[in-house]
Amino acid sequence: MVVDPDQVPCGTILEAAKALGMLTGLVVTSRVTHATPASFSAHVVHRDLEADIATHQIGDYVLGRQVDLMMGGGKCFFMPNTTEGSCRQDDRDLLGEREKYGWSTLMTSLKDMNDLNKDSNYIKLPALGLFNLDHLNYMIDTNLRKDEPTLSQMAEAALKALKRNAGPSQGFFLMIEGSRIDMGAHNNDPVAHLHEILEYHATVAAVRKFVKNNPNTLLISTSDHETGGFTLGYQPDPHKYPDYQWFPEVIDRATASTEILAPKVFGYKGKDRREYVRTEILRDGLGITDPTKEELDYLSDPSVPQGEIMVFLGHAISHRAYLGWTTIGHTGLDVNLYAEGENSSLLRGNHENTEIGQIMSEYLNVDLQAITKKLTK
Amino acid sequence: MVVDPDQVPCGTILEAAKALGMLTGLVVTSRVTHATPASFSAHVVHRDLEADIATHQIGDYVLGRQVDLMMGGGKCFFMPNTTEGSCRQDDRDLLGEREKYGWSTLMTSLKDMNDLNKDSNYIKLPALGLFNLDHLNYMIDTNLRKDEPTLSQMAEAALKALKRNAGPSQGFFLMIEGSRIDMGAHNNDPVAHLHEILEYHATVAAVRKFVKNNPNTLLISTSDHETGGFTLGYQPDPHKYPDYQWFPEVIDRATASTEILAPKVFGYKGKDRREYVRTEILRDGLGITDPTKEELDYLSDPSVPQGEIMVFLGHAISHRAYLGWTTIGHTGLDVNLYAEGENSSLLRGNHENTEIGQIMSEYLNVDLQAITKKLTK
Repeated sequence: MVVDPDQVPCGTILEAAKALGMLTGLVVTSRVTHATPASFSAHVVHRDLEADIATHQIGDYVLGRQVDLMMGGGKCFFMPNTTEGSCRQDDRDLLGEREKYGWSTLMTSLKDMNDLNKDSNYIKLPALGLFNLDHLNYMIDTNLRKDEPTLSQMAEAALKALKRNAGPSQGFFLMIEGSRIDMGAHNNDPVAHLHEILEYHATVAAVRKFVKNNPNTLLISTSDHETGGFTLGYQPDPHKYPDYQWFPEVIDRATASTEILAPKVFGYKGKDRREYVRTEILRDGLGITDPTKEELDYLSDPSVPQGEIMVFLGHAISHRAYLGWTTIGHTGLDVNLYAEGENSSLLRGNHENTEIGQIMSEYLNVDLQAITKKLTK
Repeated sequence: MVVDPDQVPCGTILEAAKALGMLTGLVVTSRVTHATPASFSAHVVHRDLEADIATHQIGDYVLGRQVDLMMGGGKCFFMPNTTEGSCRQDDRDLLGEREKYGWSTLMTSLKDMNDLNKDSNYIKLPALGLFNLDHLNYMIDTNLRKDEPTLSQMAEAALKALKRNAGPSQGFFLMIEGSRIDMGAHNNDPVAHLHEILEYHATVAAVRKFVKNNPNTLLISTSDHETGGFTLGYQPDPHKYPDYQWFPEVIDRATASTEILAPKVFGYKGKDRREYVRTEILRDGLGITDPTKEELDYLSDPSVPQGEIMVFLGHAISHRAYLGWTTIGHTGLDVNLYAEGENSSLLRGNHENTEIGQIMSEYLNVDLQAITKKLTK
């Protein structure tokens, strides 16, 4: 299928589902204003306009509030620039304005969510859950995320809420993103990457359970691209044919993401940076007890930028595990596509990425052009 | 599905199909004694025992001749050690012995094949086509392969021969391998790799045409692994976020595989190796007109081993095209699986590699255990 740009609707599946009277939800581990959730719920000229995206998401745009349940990070874009931690350049207080757009529920911690979701309770919609100023922390950074729900916890709470809030035959559209799988790969950090993937698997398992109990539901799982050129299989010595091995225990020994460790190295103000790197970063953080002289030299050099320290740490552990990367960016690799439940056969075979949206809109029988007209009139 | 090693039959699909009375064929671009065709037609303890594999393939083993049509390279393993170019350590002349095992047809050049296959003619079985002592040449090395058929030419001739030789409702099993796609990737040579892939696509197109005209045929297309950790997408500068680009014209300018160019560099005996590398290897061979000083220094150093020159040349062109590799070996990447024709729905979804053989044996309704018994009694 080739898409004619003039025919591409800018109305989104979420907005069109809402127009049909369905409930709608977005559950992510990034800022809710990040690219993927934004592409369902806002219309701005660039993905980085996250303050404007938040404004649309709260309901302040031509269609009004379209999202009934939004969970993730990114609270900083909902707070006025007069507040500490705000990412806005204006003084709009979207959390304060939220009731004007109908949002009855606000959650800002795991405890908030659990209190509302306990036993037979469920979250009353419309509900906003913003559990971090920025992205939620990586799963591996356990002690930083005590107040944050996991993706599977959010997904389960969301499914329960959407089902209980929905009237008879109302139905819902829910987009769930394991947003930080990609980010771990951008950092070439196999530890953060793996633990996000494992949580994604737990989430898919939870959603499959829901689909099993609600057979009139279609689950689609896919990605918009591969990141990192990441391979299980790597050639540690350019002069030798590689062994076909990998060492998962290397990954298992690590206790922190490089996103957390790199700023510690970069910002170190103590007297013995080399010893600090050797013990607290490499040994305690990454489980590396055999640092090379070159590694210690590099990481002890205060002129190395933080971003390069981060990727260097990722490679230090990747190479020991025999994992390879070709880039900190995206690749053109084909990605997997999975579907389960009602009409899942529509997703069989190989599809261009643009066909996934088309299949969804056909399955839901939504009118994207009608939304586009409202948005562009 | 977990395979119990005690339950794994060593009888092959090809042998079991033969036992059902079907015709059988192997069409490859490697030596016919290489791992993939051997795994269908021989029983030896190591893939490198190619002289023994040839002996089995010709028909000298417990089951007798099982293959009706075998096309590819590897003639050296069918020639006695008294002949120039032989790869055998004994003096067996399998080509001379072939009639004893029923092989009525021998082809050793493209002309041989075309003569037998012209217009309404077809190759009479059993037929052996050995078109090179070693592997067939890479598609990109055009002038070296004037006497060699392409994979698609062999596949088309094989389909015609198998269909015409088969009695009513006899049927056939044919394994076609684009063997050197993998080898180009082992060399990290994007040029050889690409041209082998294009020829594989042409072959699939030819087979699909056959399936369309013979709907009681099942086509399965897959790979046993990815090689190279090859990605379209690459980070040329470790200090900069990569552009999302690639430059196919870089690949298009090359006229030779690195397998051909590396021995030329390594074996150079002239007076100005640097100039030879700059003009005949980089410019005329790879289409590289902007060699760096480091590249010329490295390639002008007569102490660099041939294998390392080869990979270096592959990387020189890969990096200019923005293509990445993580290894010269295999990776654990999921591979694609395609099927068309009768019962192709059996191949839908995700499958463990061992399931492909199981599906084939169920579709053909063959008795692998019966073959195993004959082989192991």
